[in-house]
This record gives sequence, C-alpha cells and structure tokens, in this order.
Amino acid sequence: MRILLVGASGTLGRAVAAELGQRHEVIAAGRNSGSVKIDLTDVDSIRNGLQQAGELDAVISAAGKVTFAPLADFKAAPYGESLHTLGIADKLLGQVNLALAARDYLRDGGSITLTTGILSEQPIVEGSSASLVNGAVEAFVYAAAIELPRGLRINVVSPNVLTEAMPSYAPFFRGFEPVTAARAALAFSRSVEGAQTGQIYKVF
Amino acid sequence: MRILLVGASGTLGRAVAAELGQRHEVIAAGRNSGSVKIDLTDVDSIRNGLQQAGELDAVISAAGKVTFAPLADFKAAPYGESLHTLGIADKLLGQVNLALAARDYLRDGGSITLTTGILSEQPIVEGSSASLVNGAVEAFVYAAAIELPRGLRINVVSPNVLTEAMPSYAPFFRGFEPVTAARAALAFSRSVEGAQTGQIYKVF
Repeated sequence: MRILLVGASGTLGRAVAAELGQRHEVIAAGRNSGSVKIDLTDVDSIRNGLQQAGELDAVISAAGKVTFAPLADFKAAPYGESLHTLGIADKLLGQVNLALAARDYLRDGGSITLTTGILSEQPIVEGSSASLVNGAVEAFVYAAAIELPRGLRINVVSPNVLTEAMPSYAPFFRGFEPVTAARAALAFSRSVEGAQTGQIYKVF
Repeated sequence: MRILLVGASGTLGRAVAAELGQRHEVIAAGRNSGSVKIDLTDVDSIRNGLQQAGELDAVISAAGKVTFAPLADFKAAPYGESLHTLGIADKLLGQVNLALAARDYLRDGGSITLTTGILSEQPIVEGSSASLVNGAVEAFVYAAAIELPRGLRINVVSPNVLTEAMPSYAPFFRGFEPVTAARAALAFSRSVEGAQTGQIYKVF
C-alpha cells in the first residue's frame, strides 16, 4: 500500500511509520519535516500535499494541536479569540479537512485514520479543549463512515497518554496507565490493514 | 429557583418551560423572542442577556443550529468557509460560551444544562456536522464538570428525534424511536433539580 502519514516526525507518527513501514510505502508528511509538507490548519497545504503524494491506499493523521489551560482561563469568546481556536482549527477542522480532501486521492476501498485520545471520555484538569476536540473528531468519524463513497473507510485511534510523553505530561495524567507509542501504532495497523469502518480504536 | 432558558420558544424549550415553570421562575430567552434576547453566536448578546437576567440558579440551553447536508457537499475548507461553520459557531461554541459566561451569574451550586442529541453516537445520513458538534459539546461537558468552581454543575441532555419534529424529520430518522418534547424535558428537570454533574442524560 501507499500510505500518507501526517505527523510522521512526532512520537506517535514515528511509531506508526515503523510499524507500517515494514510492509508498506509510508510517505512522511508534516508541518516542518517529511517528504511532503502539510500543515493541517492550511487547506491549500493539505490539497497540495495530497496532490504531491499521488494515488494513495491510506491517509493517516497522527497530528493535531490543542490548547491546554485551566477552565478558569477559558472566557466566552467568538471563534478566533477563544482559547478553543487552536484546537478547533488544528486537531478538529484540520483532521476533518484532511479526511474530506483525502476522498479525492484515495483508491477504492482506501482508508482514513485520525487520532484523538482518552480525554474524549476521561477528562483531566486543564484538558477541556482537548476533550471538546477529541469528542468532535470521534463523532464525525462515526457519521462520515456511513456516507463515504467507493468503499472508503474512516476510523480513529484514541490512545491513552504515551509512555514517551510522561516526562512532561505525568503531572497532568496521574493514575493514567501510559501506553507506548509502539502499542498505539498497532491500532493504526488495524485500521489501515483491517476492513472496519466507523470505529474508535481505544488504546487504553 | 431562577432559571434562564435559552431557546425557550422552540419545541423542546416550550416543554422545558412547561416542566420547570410549575415549580420555578423560568426566564425565557431567545434570538427573536422571550423576555431576554440571546443569540448564541454573539458573545455580547450572551453577556448582556445574562446581565439582564441577574442572579440565577440554573442556565439551560435548548438551542443550537447546525447544517444538515450530504457528506459529499462538505469540502475541505477553513473555518468561515466550511459547511461546519454554522454548527461550530452556534450549537458548539455558542453553548460552550453560554456555559463559560454563566459562571459569572450563577449562585453557588447552580447548574448549566446544554443540549446535544442522539447523533453524537448514532449517525444519520446528512448528519455528519450535527454528530461532530454534539460529540464536542458532550466531551466538553465531561471535562468542564471537573473544573467548575463554587459547586457549579454542568450536564447535557441528549434526546432522540422529537415526536413533534417527525412531520419534517421522519425521512432522515427512519427506525429511530421518537420521544416527546415533554419526555425530553424531564431530563432537564433531573439536571437542574438533581445534584449530579458531568452527566449526559440520554433520552433514547
């Protein structure tokens, strides 16, 4: 398979590339690295990156930024002035736009795999925007799965906090059982190399 | 209790007002009707409406617009040019902003109750944006509940399609069991008159 992997240079992305690269051609994409440049907040860069990659069997996003901040810091504000703006523009609409654009480049039966995280259902302090964004992406995936044409599939991987991220994230995730990026990467393999659609692969 | 009800003139809102109005002072708010004018897409109108209402024991949203359209019509597009814009600005950020602003007007132990719908977990064709928005609001509620100060509570009511809406919505909700607005209104009573927080009251 030819697989475009957005966020290939991140902790999770590197593990996904290592897993799928054993059996498939993985085209690395990212904001600042990779053979293809894709910034999820820039629709033109998504389209250009897909065009550059050519025909694909799978598109994966292991990317997406959100703002972590105390709820007290979130004030009522319109889009663009809200602390939710980054997450909505990047991890939410960025991934949704990648999925929508990918329809034009995927071969029949191809797959789209997005990334959320455990915060969609198990919140942490300062994580309200991450929860909002993850919940949105997961519900979108449920819904998009029943309308994609040509046997195209869409799933999402929702990992627990990554073991590799614990040096910086541990204080926010006390009591959570971290999973290695390599273990989370297996879920991307299930999505891409399996046949299901509309699934949330929870790695926790 | 003094309860501000946004969307009071809608099918669901009228049923909520009828249920809670038996025991409490319900202040009706809406875009074009009610004693207080609140447009969820306008942060100033949210703040002005809350200010006008004064001290409150509960704030309820039974409002929120989204775009229903075939997935094929959703193109990759930035915020503002996307078919998701209405839902994100209105039912998603509108309700989130109402909740965030309500903190300044609710008495200790007061409650916030938002509205989503069954599409967050059971999709329909043409409903991908509604699913996205509902999933976002529900996950936000889970997360906000653990950070609200002064014993403030936040819940969400997720009804099935309303019986009263079936004349126009039936073709989109074949096989779904409609619930009356009066039955859905009971869940708002549980949220406001109960003591739980971070709950999704599913009326389906």
